[in-house]
Amino acid sequence: MIKLTVLYGPPTDPAAFEDYYANTHLALAAKIPNARRIEASKVVATPADGEAPYHRIAELWFDSADQMQAALGSEEGRAAVEDIDAFATGGATVVVSALD
Amino acid sequence: MIKLTVLYGPPTDPAAFEDYYANTHLALAAKIPNARRIEASKVVATPADGEAPYHRIAELWFDSADQMQAALGSEEGRAAVEDIDAFATGGATVVVSALD
Repeated sequence: MIKLTVLYGPPTDPAAFEDYYANTHLALAAKIPNARRIEASKVVATPADGEAPYHRIAELWFDSADQMQAALGSEEGRAAVEDIDAFATGGATVVVSALD
Repeated sequence: MIKLTVLYGPPTDPAAFEDYYANTHLALAAKIPNARRIEASKVVATPADGEAPYHRIAELWFDSADQMQAALGSEEGRAAVEDIDAFATGGATVVVSALD
């Protein structure tokens, strides 16, 4: 199984980020085909008590890399990815990993 | 639900990291109490085709922040956390997030 992890950096306006994310982006992300599971979470703490390196994490699980590529290449997948630029003022680090 | 995410930076010796991780660290991590689920994955790609910022991701899900704190404060939790220094030559970024 393949996991797509999106790590959102701290936005310049967290309230605006949260508003757009909840009311616009999540609906686009929910339309991404082939995703077995989607999980969104908001960073609450870092053990080191410093500034958290990320504001939010979003993860999508797919059965295979092929399924993920097909999803990201679909109209719905491209719309969700392109939408990231509209609100992720702190950037977004994307990591693809294979489950053990 | 609370998620503990460990993002391992690129190690100086990936083969040694993988060997230690599979044969020593995972057994310690499996003993952490209260974890509803543990997921380990190996980074396979970054969309930007640059060097991946992370080598591995490990995630543990807990019912609550209190359950997580109790787990990390336990003997088994402390042993697993302290073991990270033994192999994570690329560092480890730890992020705690609350599921939406």
